[in-house]
Formats: sequence, structure tokens, C-alpha cells
Amino acid sequence: MLPILHLNGYKISGPTVMARTSDEELGLYFKGLGYTPYFVEGDDPEIVHQLFAAALDSCYARIREIQKVSRADKDQPRESWPMIVLRTPKGWTCPKEVDGVPIEGTFRAHQVPLSTVRENPEHLKMLEAWMRKYRPEELFDKEGRLIAELAALAPDGSRRMGANPHVNGGRLLKALDLPDFAQYALSIPGPGEVVAEAPRKLGEYLRDAIKLNPANFRLFCPDETNSNRLNAAFDATDRCTMEPIVSIDDHLAPDGRVMEVLSEHLCEGWLEGYLLTGRHGMWSSYEAFAQVVDSMVTQHAKWMEQCLEYPWRRPIASLNVLLTSHAWRNDHNGFSHQAPGFVDNALQRRSDVVRVYYPPDSNCLLNVFDHCLRSRNYVNVVTCGKQPELQWLTFDEALAHCSQGASIWKFATNDGGGEPDIVLACAGDVPTIEACATSWLLQKHVPGIKVRVVNVVDLNSLMSPDDHPHGMDNISFNALFTPNVDVIFAFHGYRWIIHSMVHGRSNESRFHVRGFNDEGTTTTPFDMVVLNKMSRFHLAIDALKHMPRLRSQASDAIDMFKRKLYEHHAYIREHFEDMPEIRNWSWTKDFSEPPAPPPLAKEQPRAQLFSDA
Amino acid sequence: MLPILHLNGYKISGPTVMARTSDEELGLYFKGLGYTPYFVEGDDPEIVHQLFAAALDSCYARIREIQKVSRADKDQPRESWPMIVLRTPKGWTCPKEVDGVPIEGTFRAHQVPLSTVRENPEHLKMLEAWMRKYRPEELFDKEGRLIAELAALAPDGSRRMGANPHVNGGRLLKALDLPDFAQYALSIPGPGEVVAEAPRKLGEYLRDAIKLNPANFRLFCPDETNSNRLNAAFDATDRCTMEPIVSIDDHLAPDGRVMEVLSEHLCEGWLEGYLLTGRHGMWSSYEAFAQVVDSMVTQHAKWMEQCLEYPWRRPIASLNVLLTSHAWRNDHNGFSHQAPGFVDNALQRRSDVVRVYYPPDSNCLLNVFDHCLRSRNYVNVVTCGKQPELQWLTFDEALAHCSQGASIWKFATNDGGGEPDIVLACAGDVPTIEACATSWLLQKHVPGIKVRVVNVVDLNSLMSPDDHPHGMDNISFNALFTPNVDVIFAFHGYRWIIHSMVHGRSNESRFHVRGFNDEGTTTTPFDMVVLNKMSRFHLAIDALKHMPRLRSQASDAIDMFKRKLYEHHAYIREHFEDMPEIRNWSWTKDFSEPPAPPPLAKEQPRAQLFSDA
Repeated sequence: MLPILHLNGYKISGPTVMARTSDEELGLYFKGLGYTPYFVEGDDPEIVHQLFAAALDSCYARIREIQKVSRADKDQPRESWPMIVLRTPKGWTCPKEVDGVPIEGTFRAHQVPLSTVRENPEHLKMLEAWMRKYRPEELFDKEGRLIAELAALAPDGSRRMGANPHVNGGRLLKALDLPDFAQYALSIPGPGEVVAEAPRKLGEYLRDAIKLNPANFRLFCPDETNSNRLNAAFDATDRCTMEPIVSIDDHLAPDGRVMEVLSEHLCEGWLEGYLLTGRHGMWSSYEAFAQVVDSMVTQHAKWMEQCLEYPWRRPIASLNVLLTSHAWRNDHNGFSHQAPGFVDNALQRRSDVVRVYYPPDSNCLLNVFDHCLRSRNYVNVVTCGKQPELQWLTFDEALAHCSQGASIWKFATNDGGGEPDIVLACAGDVPTIEACATSWLLQKHVPGIKVRVVNVVDLNSLMSPDDHPHGMDNISFNALFTPNVDVIFAFHGYRWIIHSMVHGRSNESRFHVRGFNDEGTTTTPFDMVVLNKMSRFHLAIDALKHMPRLRSQASDAIDMFKRKLYEHHAYIREHFEDMPEIRNWSWTKDFSEPPAPPPLAKEQPRAQLFSDA
Repeated sequence: MLPILHLNGYKISGPTVMARTSDEELGLYFKGLGYTPYFVEGDDPEIVHQLFAAALDSCYARIREIQKVSRADKDQPRESWPMIVLRTPKGWTCPKEVDGVPIEGTFRAHQVPLSTVRENPEHLKMLEAWMRKYRPEELFDKEGRLIAELAALAPDGSRRMGANPHVNGGRLLKALDLPDFAQYALSIPGPGEVVAEAPRKLGEYLRDAIKLNPANFRLFCPDETNSNRLNAAFDATDRCTMEPIVSIDDHLAPDGRVMEVLSEHLCEGWLEGYLLTGRHGMWSSYEAFAQVVDSMVTQHAKWMEQCLEYPWRRPIASLNVLLTSHAWRNDHNGFSHQAPGFVDNALQRRSDVVRVYYPPDSNCLLNVFDHCLRSRNYVNVVTCGKQPELQWLTFDEALAHCSQGASIWKFATNDGGGEPDIVLACAGDVPTIEACATSWLLQKHVPGIKVRVVNVVDLNSLMSPDDHPHGMDNISFNALFTPNVDVIFAFHGYRWIIHSMVHGRSNESRFHVRGFNDEGTTTTPFDMVVLNKMSRFHLAIDALKHMPRLRSQASDAIDMFKRKLYEHHAYIREHFEDMPEIRNWSWTKDFSEPPAPPPLAKEQPRAQLFSDA
């Protein structure tokens, strides 16, 4: 790889910054970045072409030399790599002047130097003179065909620009050799009885994926692989570095396959390049900072949307994004770290390239991610927290649930398959806890109530099949949500996503969505759902207010739930942690109050020595 | 301003890039960027503090010297500015080792070095020893109060950190002296009869705003001030540069107040800093690339949301964003330039800081922008194209329309104040053209039809007053949209915004929204609305399908509109431009076919010499 900085002086209407920087300062700048710059400058094409060819030869020779030395001795310190600074005029060889205004070598050459050739005969003449400078009579025969001698210069076969496999990475793609993901199942005694950090088991799975695919799989992450609980990966590989390594470093090596640098731009950009050249990978980020690359993801997705229209563009591996350290559990980092909008941006792209998942626990995360790593041509956005949270589904249940995309959670439902009084829907790990806790509270405090809990793991399943390939037809949709019963929907992100997805479904105004409203601060986990009015108490009050059959019996419960919100407000200000009934809550079949916080799952891998963000 | 790079070696779990870069390379890098670096390095606090103080003194003296020379002679070339590279250990003075693992000077000091002091008596002892190193007995008296001698060292009054006006810019804010915006009215003969480039008149207004406020108002733009038709600004000022200026440069000067650099990050970041320090400005960007700074706008808005909670934080000027070169008229730039999602991200913030406007023409743009420049503490996002488009409202009509936020456009409405067969709603300049053309087509081809056109300029007015201060109450909402008539809504951006905003309104399922679906390419302007199914023909067919009273008479018109879509498809492939009936269309009171393209408005300022993006 040979970086070339081409400075032609101008952008649309002014000089570029580096074009006006002296060669001396440019030289220092690139040396400081570890390069040896070669300068090529001029405005006579014949001369500059020769100078440029000579510079390319020198650089090539230098690169070969460096490679020889470094490959012979891996401990060799990093050498200074060559690069070229090429200075030529903007609009090189276009008319020097038009209507008395200089064009070649100025910002005016940025677009169409002669814009009125149809109406202005003088401009047309200038255009002809310009084009004739290329001596077309020497390039084309009488029929206007390129002469054979020149045509023969163009590369053929896989050296053609569009056929080169290096620019059509799908042609080089080898499917990953993935371990059987059932091996990484977390066993749980029952739904909502133990807690675990969901990404830990995924980390073990990724560790083995790295071992099985030592040459075409990488993790990209802004220094959070450990913090995001994927640290098992370091049993198989290291963090990649080209800088000197010292004794206290932890898993740092030149051939490490975990790319960690504190720049979302670099991480996501590296992954894009890695995928486009036929490899596989994933990028894991704090949820709020994924937004830093909204525009990059937009352009990558648009590229894939266009590629789908050309059969010769072979499928590439999907851009897999794991968003963790999310809005609802960023307690000590606070408001700047609370922003789940990356998904909104992804959903703006066409439905044939975007997939959005909210696995509610460890086994669902494993299922979803195995699917993502096997997929092609998608942007897969998976949001799942890293903090210890209640675990809900066994491996087999998770498999069934994730295959369906959304399903009724029987353990939290008591409608006996008939029509419930209310449907509690949820998408996201924290909303799932609140929705299940709401079902538990309602069943405990409102005798005779019939509640149904629907969990959505594949968000796109909510859409109409006309709008997304994963979309549910109306019959399936009504089988989950009924045609008419009110639905209280707790959602991880912004409410409009759900409002829009259910638009056109039977009786859409019965969907009452609660989600993130940009209310946050450095506070307790439960206070986050209270601030955004998505807590179990808010959901329960909402449910009772939309339940004609039981409305008269509901007043006491509503009063109690409101009181709980006041108690919470006072308690956290005194104790700096959530009320025991919140901290200790776990699912109990008989709705008895759990006396102590739910235990860790047995197979929960060992936690880190040091607490981290 | 003195830049200081503090290198303490590590991030959460690995070394930082620059920490491992040699002093030699760092020195070259900063010299290349135009700085003279001063290095301060060490791990003995007493020594490093002295070295650092000496470096600060040297830098201060050097800055004073540079200022003296440059202020005496404005043509002096840029001097090399001082900066400091400070290298100290991470977690400096924390325990050297905990449980046999090194902490000070390693990544492990990133967070809590002693995390189990409550449970582990040995850790508690280490914490105590660590804290005692600071010799608290010398710092505090017996009651635990800071001793008077030290307390006296802290600055008082406006030198206190939180009271310093430089960090509370609202205290320094002076309201802009703005010209009477009625002076910049575009006169038009009647609605939809002439075309103009909407931002040109705004450019004249900004020119005079710059003249009236020479010290506290700037435009920020990635090299598009001209391209965005705001070039009148250059009659009042220049583009700012610190690099050498040559003869062919256009409006380039060290004291220019237009900040142009091809980096959305820099432009938006500069504007943030300018506002936070008590000044005023606006940032204009191509719509698609505004997304580059989604995350920066998120953080600025969150900052303002928090500031609203503290009365001592004085209001600052709003962050005014003009999005032009938008998705619907980016014909020759194509798909990468077609992405209206910046607004979606802005709308994720709280409603007390976000305002979103879609002025449909020149006079509305002027009205909206004058309002934005006078506002405080908002992010104002204004989307309006720069291409020649039909002009609708006189200055007085625009004033009334913009004050209301949304209103019925009488000239395109024929329901006589009664119940229409259909409501055609629109937000955005191109959707407005399509909605008006739809009304024209329906009135021309479906005798007896009653149509109402509602234009929305202040998007937030669609929201419930509970959700946004600009939100309409239900009575006003129904006065515009009726309680039950179907609404065909043509929207500039993504459909979910409207779906969500009308959620909870009377009969919300009657809102049929058409917007941008990420369908685009390098094509004709009208093909863009066809590809995204928002063309006048799509809207008209949609309208006729939702009109029970006239359904039986509508079949012929539906067939004709469908045929027009086929004709369009064939025509643009043969002629590379839109059909004459599209290019020539303008509003005619008698629904006669306009024979030629609508003329330019008389006062349309002179166009640029060179066509540009």
C-alpha cells in the first residue's frame, strides 16, 4: 500500500489547507506520522509523468526492502514507509482562460469549465480546441474505434478494473468456519431467576471463531473489548500494534487480530475495508458513540444497496455491529453516554440491507450473532447490554424465539391462549425486564387479570412484509398482538420507530409506546427507566388505564404504583442505590417477593479484576 | 490559546497511539502542523510541576512576541505557535501495585484502582496510605475545613471556574443587530408562477447582518457558501485564511468572517465553540453530509438540555443549520448525496431545544431564518433547496404562514371551507410542488372534486402540545386536517417522523405518508420523486383511492396517471430530461397547460458564472 496525497490546489471555491502548506511543513508532518515523503511537482504533463513514474519505482523498491528486513526479523522496529506528495494544477490541460477569467490551475476548474457550449459558438470552439489537443486522430480509427495498439495496453481478465477480485471482495470471500454455537449455551434454572453478563458467552464463541479462522476474521473496537465483556477473545489472540511493546502491556502484538483504537471512525472504516476485500469481522462500540459514524454506515449501506443491483458484484460479509454499554445502563458515565439513535440512522437505509436485533439475554445474543456472522450484504445492528441482568430463555427456547423474531413469552403470560386484557410488548434487554416485572406486578396485585407478554428480538419482524423481508403478515401479527387489545410497548430506543412500524396494522392507535426520551443523567439503573417513564410502575399504570374490563378494580393498584414512584424518588436520594424490591426482584412463579438479589448464573464466566466503564 | 497534549500512556486497556510515538516523530508531526512543541516529561511531581510552570512561562512569552510582530505588520507570514507535550504516568501517585499487579503508570489506573475497599481490609489500608500521602493534616483544620491560607488561593468573583464568563458565554452574549427582513422580500406575481433560488435573498440578508455585526457573527460552511447561493455574503466579507494568499484567490483574507473548510466536523465544531463563548453564527451544509456530525450535534444539544436546568447558565445563541443541496435535487451528484436523516437525529433530542423547519420558498426561508437568528438555546434545522423552484407566497403571506407553523393554502384548495374529499399535506419544498401539482391535476381531471392543501413549515407544529411547545392542540389540528378525511402527506424526509407525530390524533390511520425511501441515483429531478413514489401522479392515485364519494368516477384518471408514470420512464431514458409537462408545469388558475417553463422571478439575483454542485 502506497499512500499518495494529490494536491491540486483547490476545492469548489477556495484553496485546500494542505495545498497552501509549504513542502517543508508537509515533509515534517508526514515524517511525524512515520512516512518518508517523496515530492513530485510540475505542470508539464510529459515531465510530470516521468517524475511520477520514477517516484513510484523508488517507493516500490523501498517497500520491498522494508518487507525483506521486517519479514526476516519480526522484532525489527517499524521502518519509515514511503508516500508521495503530488502537486499538479487543478483542471490540468483544460482551457487556461474562459471569458477573460483564469480557469486551469484555479478553483474555477472544479466543475464544468465551459458550461454554455450549446448556446455560445466561441465556447464550442474552445471545447473543440481542447479536445483536439488529445490528438484523437492518433487514438481512434476512421470508425471511431480505439486503435488496436492502445486497446492492447488495457489489462484483461481479472486485471480489469471492475473484475479485479481485490475490488470485488465477494470473489475472495471464504465462509467462516464457525464453532457449534450450542456449546456456548448458558444454562439457567428458570426464566428470570439468575443474572449474567450477556456478552461473556459470546466472547467465548468469538474466541473459538478467531482460533478457527486465523487469517480472515477480526474484531474492531474502540478499546472496549474487555469492557464489553468479550475478553475471552484474548485467550486466542492479542491487540494489534505496530508500536514498541513494553513489559506491562496486556495482550499486545503486531499480529493481534483485535483492532483497538479509541476512534469509532478508524474502527468502522477498517472493518468496511476488511469486508470489502473479502474478509469477515465485527465492530463493537458503546451505543452512544456509534453515532460518530452515522454517515460512514450510511455510505457503506448505500454501496451495498447499489451492489445488489449488479449480479457480478459478489456478496460480501455483513457489517456486524454490537452496541453495548447502552443508554439504560450507563449509570456512572451519564447523559453524554445515553443516546440510542444509531439504529434510527441504520433503519433509514433500504430494508434489503438492514437488520436490527435486540436480544434480551445471553442465549438470544449468541443465536443472533451466529446468524449475523453467517449472513451476507447486511448491516446487522445488535443492541445488548453488558451489565449483569436477568436471564430468560434456555438455549432451545432462544433458538425458537430468535427464529420467529418475536413470540409470546408463556411463563409471563396467563391468558390461556385466549384474549388478554392487555398485551405487554418489549424489545431490548432493559425493556424486557420492565415488561416482565409489569406482568408480575399486575398478576400479583390485580386478581383475575389476563396478561400477555410479547418479546421482539428481530425488530424488523414488526414491519409489513411489503416493507421488509422479515416483516410479519397481518394474521401472524394479530396472533401475537391480537387485533384489538391495547398494547403497552416498552422499547429500547426512540418511540417513533415503533409508531411507524405498526402503522397500517389493525387498530394502530392501541399501541402505546414508551422508550428513550433523552432523559438521563448519572443515576441508578432503575431511575433511568423512571426518568423516561418506562418503568414497571409506569407500564402497569398505563396497562390498567387501558383495560375496560377491570378498570373499576384497578384504582388501588394504580395508587400503589404511583406511590412506589414517589418512594423510589426519595429512596435513591437517600441511599444512592435502588430500592430493595427493585434490586432484589426476580421472576417468581407464585409472585412472592424475592428476599435477596438474584444470584449469578453458574456458568457466568469469571468477572474482571477491575471494574470498568 | 495554548494547545497541550497530555500523554499519560494508556486508555482503558492498552497504550494510546501517540504515547508510543517517539519524541522525535511527535516533534516533526507538530512542527508540520505549524507548532513549536515544548516537551515536559517526568514522574516526580515536585520536579514536573516546576518544569511545567517554566514551559508555560516560555510559551506565554513566545505568544506575546508573535502577537506583537503580527499586530504590527498584518502581512507578516504565519509564525510557528508554541504547544506543550506533557508526558506523566497514568494514575500518577496512586498505589504502585495492588495484589501484585502494577497499577500506577499502566492502563489499570484508568478507573478505580482499589475497587473492593468495603470488603477487603488490606485494600482499605492501601487507600488510607494513599490518601495520607496528601498530608491532609496540613490542608484541613480540626473541623475538616480547608485552611484559610489555601482557601485564599482559589480565585473569586468572575475568576471562579463556573462563574468565568468565558465558560458561560451567555453572559457575554449581545443580541445581533439584524436588518428589517421585509427588505429582502421576493415579489412574485402569483403563487407557483415564477421560479427562484430560495437562498439568494437570504444571502443578501446575511450580507447585511455581517455588515451590522462585524465582531460577533460568522458563517461556517464546508466550501459551499457560493454553491449554496449565499454568495452575496462576499460583498460584506471574505473567506478566512491564515495561509499565503495569491492573486487568483477569490475573497480570501485573514479577517474574513466566512469559515470555509471541507470538513463538517471542523465547521460545526467551530460554530459550537463560537456560540458557547457568546457569539452568533450559522452552519450551512449539503444535507447528506450533515450526518457526519450527528454525534457532535447530539452532544451540543444534550449540553443545552442540561443547561436549561441551571438558571445561572445564561442562554446562548442557537445552533442554526441550513441544509441545502438536498436529497430531491442532487441530480448529478447521485445516491451518496441523497440522505435526509440529519433531522431524525436532531429530533431525538428533547423538544425544548430542537426546532425543525421546511420553508417551501424564498419568502418563507427568510422568515424562518430571521426567527432562528433571534432565538436562543435551540438547534434550529432548516431544510430548503438551492435550485430554481416555484415560488408560492408573498412576503406577507409567508409571514402569516410561518407564524402559524402550518396552514391551509387557499389558492390550491377548493373545498370552500367545508369538508374536502381529500387533504393533501406537504412539508419541504419539493413535496410542496408535488402536492400543489396533485391538487392541480385532481381539479383538472376529476370534476366536482374538493381538495384541500395544507403546508407545514414548522414540523414540530404537528406534534401534540404535550410533546413539543410548538405542538397544535387537537382542535387546531382537526381544523387543518379535518377529524376524519384521509390525508395524503408528502414529506421531505423519512416517513416515520410523520407517523410518529400524528400518533394519537383523531383517526391516525388515515394519514398516508410518502417520503424518502433511500431510492436514488444520478437522474432527473422528477425521477427522484417517482423513484420514491412521491410524485404528483403517485399522490393523485393515492388520493383517488381514498375518496369514497368519487371512487366510481376516478378510474379513468387513475389509469391516466399510471400511464404518465410509464411515459415518464420511457421519456427520460430517451431525452435525459423530464417531460415537457413536468418541466413546464406551473400553477394556472384555470388549469390550462402552461406552454413553457415558468420564468425566473424578476428580483432573482444574478446567477453564478459557473455551474456548481
